[in-house]
Amino acid sequence: MSPVAFPTQNAVVLHGPKDLRVEDRTLWPPRYNEAQVAVVATGLCGSDLHYYMHGRNGDFAVQAPMVLGHEAAGVVTAVGPGVRNVVPGQRVAIEAGIMCNNCTYCSKGRYNLCKGMRFCSSAKTFPHLDGTLQSRMNHPASVLHPLPDNCSFELGALAEPLSVLLHASRRADLTSGQSVLVFGVGAIGLLACALAKSLGASRVCAIDINRARLEFANSQGFAQQVYCLPPSDRAKTSEDQLRRAKENAQVALSEFCMQDGFDVVFECTGAEPCIQMAIHAATTGGKVMLVGMGSRNVMLPLSAAATREVDIHGSFRYANTYPTALALLASGKLKNVEKLVTHRFPLEQSATAFDLLARGSDEDGNMVLKVMIGRQ
Amino acid sequence: MSPVAFPTQNAVVLHGPKDLRVEDRTLWPPRYNEAQVAVVATGLCGSDLHYYMHGRNGDFAVQAPMVLGHEAAGVVTAVGPGVRNVVPGQRVAIEAGIMCNNCTYCSKGRYNLCKGMRFCSSAKTFPHLDGTLQSRMNHPASVLHPLPDNCSFELGALAEPLSVLLHASRRADLTSGQSVLVFGVGAIGLLACALAKSLGASRVCAIDINRARLEFANSQGFAQQVYCLPPSDRAKTSEDQLRRAKENAQVALSEFCMQDGFDVVFECTGAEPCIQMAIHAATTGGKVMLVGMGSRNVMLPLSAAATREVDIHGSFRYANTYPTALALLASGKLKNVEKLVTHRFPLEQSATAFDLLARGSDEDGNMVLKVMIGRQ
Amino acid sequence: MSPVAFPTQNAVVLHGPKDLRVEDRTLWPPRYNEAQVAVVATGLCGSDLHYYMHGRNGDFAVQAPMVLGHEAAGVVTAVGPGVRNVVPGQRVAIEAGIMCNNCTYCSKGRYNLCKGMRFCSSAKTFPHLDGTLQSRMNHPASVLHPLPDNCSFELGALAEPLSVLLHASRRADLTSGQSVLVFGVGAIGLLACALAKSLGASRVCAIDINRARLEFANSQGFAQQVYCLPPSDRAKTSEDQLRRAKENAQVALSEFCMQDGFDVVFECTGAEPCIQMAIHAATTGGKVMLVGMGSRNVMLPLSAAATREVDIHGSFRYANTYPTALALLASGKLKNVEKLVTHRFPLEQSATAFDLLARGSDEDGNMVLKVMIGRQ
Amino acid sequence: MSPVAFPTQNAVVLHGPKDLRVEDRTLWPPRYNEAQVAVVATGLCGSDLHYYMHGRNGDFAVQAPMVLGHEAAGVVTAVGPGVRNVVPGQRVAIEAGIMCNNCTYCSKGRYNLCKGMRFCSSAKTFPHLDGTLQSRMNHPASVLHPLPDNCSFELGALAEPLSVLLHASRRADLTSGQSVLVFGVGAIGLLACALAKSLGASRVCAIDINRARLEFANSQGFAQQVYCLPPSDRAKTSEDQLRRAKENAQVALSEFCMQDGFDVVFECTGAEPCIQMAIHAATTGGKVMLVGMGSRNVMLPLSAAATREVDIHGSFRYANTYPTALALLASGKLKNVEKLVTHRFPLEQSATAFDLLARGSDEDGNMVLKVMIGRQ
Repeated sequence: MSPVAFPTQNAVVLHGPKDLRVEDRTLWPPRYNEAQVAVVATGLCGSDLHYYMHGRNGDFAVQAPMVLGHEAAGVVTAVGPGVRNVVPGQRVAIEAGIMCNNCTYCSKGRYNLCKGMRFCSSAKTFPHLDGTLQSRMNHPASVLHPLPDNCSFELGALAEPLSVLLHASRRADLTSGQSVLVFGVGAIGLLACALAKSLGASRVCAIDINRARLEFANSQGFAQQVYCLPPSDRAKTSEDQLRRAKENAQVALSEFCMQDGFDVVFECTGAEPCIQMAIHAATTGGKVMLVGMGSRNVMLPLSAAATREVDIHGSFRYANTYPTALALLASGKLKNVEKLVTHRFPLEQSATAFDLLARGSDEDGNMVLKVMIGRQ
Repeated sequence: MSPVAFPTQNAVVLHGPKDLRVEDRTLWPPRYNEAQVAVVATGLCGSDLHYYMHGRNGDFAVQAPMVLGHEAAGVVTAVGPGVRNVVPGQRVAIEAGIMCNNCTYCSKGRYNLCKGMRFCSSAKTFPHLDGTLQSRMNHPASVLHPLPDNCSFELGALAEPLSVLLHASRRADLTSGQSVLVFGVGAIGLLACALAKSLGASRVCAIDINRARLEFANSQGFAQQVYCLPPSDRAKTSEDQLRRAKENAQVALSEFCMQDGFDVVFECTGAEPCIQMAIHAATTGGKVMLVGMGSRNVMLPLSAAATREVDIHGSFRYANTYPTALALLASGKLKNVEKLVTHRFPLEQSATAFDLLARGSDEDGNMVLKVMIGRQ
Repeated sequence: MSPVAFPTQNAVVLHGPKDLRVEDRTLWPPRYNEAQVAVVATGLCGSDLHYYMHGRNGDFAVQAPMVLGHEAAGVVTAVGPGVRNVVPGQRVAIEAGIMCNNCTYCSKGRYNLCKGMRFCSSAKTFPHLDGTLQSRMNHPASVLHPLPDNCSFELGALAEPLSVLLHASRRADLTSGQSVLVFGVGAIGLLACALAKSLGASRVCAIDINRARLEFANSQGFAQQVYCLPPSDRAKTSEDQLRRAKENAQVALSEFCMQDGFDVVFECTGAEPCIQMAIHAATTGGKVMLVGMGSRNVMLPLSAAATREVDIHGSFRYANTYPTALALLASGKLKNVEKLVTHRFPLEQSATAFDLLARGSDEDGNMVLKVMIGRQ
Repeated sequence: MSPVAFPTQNAVVLHGPKDLRVEDRTLWPPRYNEAQVAVVATGLCGSDLHYYMHGRNGDFAVQAPMVLGHEAAGVVTAVGPGVRNVVPGQRVAIEAGIMCNNCTYCSKGRYNLCKGMRFCSSAKTFPHLDGTLQSRMNHPASVLHPLPDNCSFELGALAEPLSVLLHASRRADLTSGQSVLVFGVGAIGLLACALAKSLGASRVCAIDINRARLEFANSQGFAQQVYCLPPSDRAKTSEDQLRRAKENAQVALSEFCMQDGFDVVFECTGAEPCIQMAIHAATTGGKVMLVGMGSRNVMLPLSAAATREVDIHGSFRYANTYPTALALLASGKLKNVEKLVTHRFPLEQSATAFDLLARGSDEDGNMVLKVMIGRQ
């Protein structure tokens, strides 16, 4: 028996597809430059859902039991040696990625591309880095960010998906006065709308195949105009699909009275027809930001992009976004952003939460956008 | 006698210091690529006031009778051959500068630096280009910009000073989440505050020597925090003044709880002590934007800028700003911007208007910010 | 009969596929802002060849007899009213595109995207703008650029294709110390190599399917290392081709000892397998520049680009490049650039020149790179 | 007595003005993430000379014995635990600054502005970080950069001052085709010339007060044209000096046939009259880079900068420059750069070396540019 008895904490551990177990784990004291955080709120993300449903997310399979969750905020409960930026009792958002601080990407400020990055609840690296669906966790203090006073823990958790869009908007050089189109109005797409508006976009429009989501986006002030894409015919050839994408783009632009196209298009679905449409819906000299991950290989109308200098940019996670994201969330400029959180569960009911997220709507027929796990 | 009789129009012509005459002038039909505009609103600018008071503005002396005014909006009444972007009856903002379209600055999108530019009511070039204090004028259609439906003529006239700030904010790469400090809260400084806020600035603070203006800036939501600079002691040596500027900057930063300094500082006074303070008030790696023109030669604490990589950028007029400026003005995001217009006069009372602007406050003690000349 | 007799000049006019006729045409005096130029050298471009062979270039069919040629230099022989930047006797490069100077693209310095642009020897607009395969032509003086003293007419003609690469390198933010890979070492690819080297690229490598061209590129100092792509198997499925492209990229990177990939990849072939390879050959955070036009629709390994933030940029013609391109050509920094001109013909033998260009090698088995038409 | 005996090494320690002592010091084994380097070459810098002569450099006084030197290269002799990027026997350049890796400046890629940075041989922080005038030293492996095979140790040491210019040229957005003017042609100014040329500058001109240096700069191919500034009259008033600076700038521009001014001006003297001239010598829309540190407060012709949008940028040390600097030095593109090293001394004769550097020319009247201390 150890001469020193450490307390324990609860963790929600994924052991295999749909095999989520609440476990008691030893709570080690924080090490050098680490702080201990009592996690108060964790938002569930699509990648978490993939791991939960299939034990894998795209190429990355879970190779050992792993804790899910990476959109989180909490309270610092202890600090290890060397920590100076946070103190016990402080409310913080938890930036989920731990960069190596030793490569050229880290050195140049693009740590999201760091090949040594370990990321909470991602099976890309092994051993995996456990996620935030725990009652307490130790994490490097340098990636804990103080919550502004008027920023709730749930808003703090939303700083993670908002960071994804903030990074994308920076890569797009999105500036005041530009017109913005968003494909897909799930939680990510709605945040894209809200962010674009807060950055001074002159127009924010949205496209989806789900009429209910579009109505929400429109009525709650996320998108000024919306267009519901007709369901696509699966039997189409590749050529047919490309022609159809171009036609759909033209119809949508016409509906929006934006025949010249949009300055910036955030593609948040990852679906091939939407990526194709996105190129036609961007204005000459505009930008298509690939935010949604989906299709690995995509047939693109490339000359329609190249001859019009429509740039196609991927956007992977984020770097140096948290302070700005938290300031935005606290500012009230992201109107109705708190309505993204549609459902809440305690830590112990994480499996139920994932099942709900997988269904997409609850028993009362209400849309599921962001599900929060936590103690609130 | 001419076989063709042309109608006439009224123009307010400056013949010398304080010598403003309303004159009847022949109204020529618009030439190739020109449109004729009935001017509805013209805002008076500090440079107009200099011409009115002294017959000169800095280096540029009026060499022949000249019409003042360059912040204007109106209605198109006729178009010359070749015009396609506007039609008679259209409400437009009048961009005051006519670039040469033939030099590298024009070609590269920096037409504000075009050496062949002729600018309404500026005596820099000769023959001077008459300004907008006229009932009707002909102007190149390519620099007339349609007013959005919910943008009044007065707001359209404000697109000119707003353009100055929009250009400065682009040169500063001002982005969401940054902190902004504004020196001088006259009309230009207040627009700097409103614009910064609309661009997502996390903090907007202001400094002035005029307590009433600061209170207006604060109470109307332009600046979250303000600091009133104590009056400076004229007898100081250059060294004393520099030390005093540094101390004042430190006190102000401390009041604002921004010890690390601001990301972007808009210096809108042109006063030497303020420019000196601006450098100390900018954060390491920040930017000082010189918007106010004033002192020709300035003693700068240059090593305090250079070793901290605080960039010092002038910002001269604007280029490619009008569509964005008008969209912003129409969007409602520039809160209380319409309150900048404190006084209004008909064209015939332009001299009275200039006298009021020179005094700075009206008979009832009300502050004078922007004076509008027009028909509203 | 006209009371004034004008002189005539020779023009090489395309009347249909392979139907090139030398015609006598009236030489009008230059109009307002135009200069008259005696064309001394015109380089033949791939797009000219398409028009010659097929009467069309991609989507654009010749609708009326049109003069080909748009890479040219000559001597000013007369100027029209208003011209101030050139004088008769001056040696100039002829920038082939005439922008509208009236749209937002022109105003912002991106006139290559101007929708009203008329471009010499392009059938995109109608009436077509005749090209430079004429003995004399009138052209707006503002797009004539003085040749530096040590820049020959042929080098002046090369300023056009060099401009294409200069524009692409600017869009790629290519800077000193970066590694560069070029797909396709025809005239455009070789210029890409030479430019990259002159801009301080730390490594310049090239890939092609033509061993002779690669040897030329390597031995003449354009590319430090080259890789010859094995001929592709036509029978492959789309999936096979994608896998093959990835493998080929890995083999090439390994040969180049550049396993992490290149900072900037100039794709100058327009071939689908090369575009696919280009994405895999770019480093994480790198850029793929689509310079070659070819396949309209392309199957892309998009997630391999998006998750590594490999940006895909088209690059269309050029803007504001001529002065820099001419200075570079005159500087001697583009080593062996004059060797790109492999064959020369007088204006009357243009058809023979096109036939040679179509064959790709001359009777002695020498490679054809750039064919010059002219009087030298 | 220690049970383990460590070897010793020699260090050249500054105990006070002109009090340099060679001392035997214990050579500790490298700690976690550190490597041990046998220093082969150290270049002496102006800041080292200030410490040697006065015991201080500007505001920073030496508070305890300190080893000088920060431009260095050597051979790795041992590595501590965790080191993976270098191996014993490897030739490396030593980047002198150790950043905190924990602040927003480090995170954003601007680690040169890190307030926690400890820099070899700088008394800015206490305890001071010893410099490279030692036979062996331990240093974080992450800031050791492998020397290319054809890069000598001396060239590797020059990567430090070259980094200063590379950083400045990046902050200036210096690109191919621009014209460059350099004030001051000591070692730093000559490197500015060589770098500008290698980056494709269309013109590189230089100004100094020392005719011999200018002749060297010109004859060795660093600057195409040079201008020798007449000695200034000390008795001048501030106004006289400003007028004189403007006149001198005009004369120099005229001599260079560059009446419109230079795109980028590197001010490497830190002298007030040169900074004033620099503003007038920059073209409208150009940039003045403050590389030389000198005058703390400077009277600037600020309106001449602001109304022409001449940006004034400080440039402090460097970030993320070493790989590019070393590649450039190895490439041979910096013509005659090895001639910057005019004198060499062994470590034990460091005092003699500093005395020579202070005099500026040796007994034979040869100019002193860069003095190297080392074992070659």
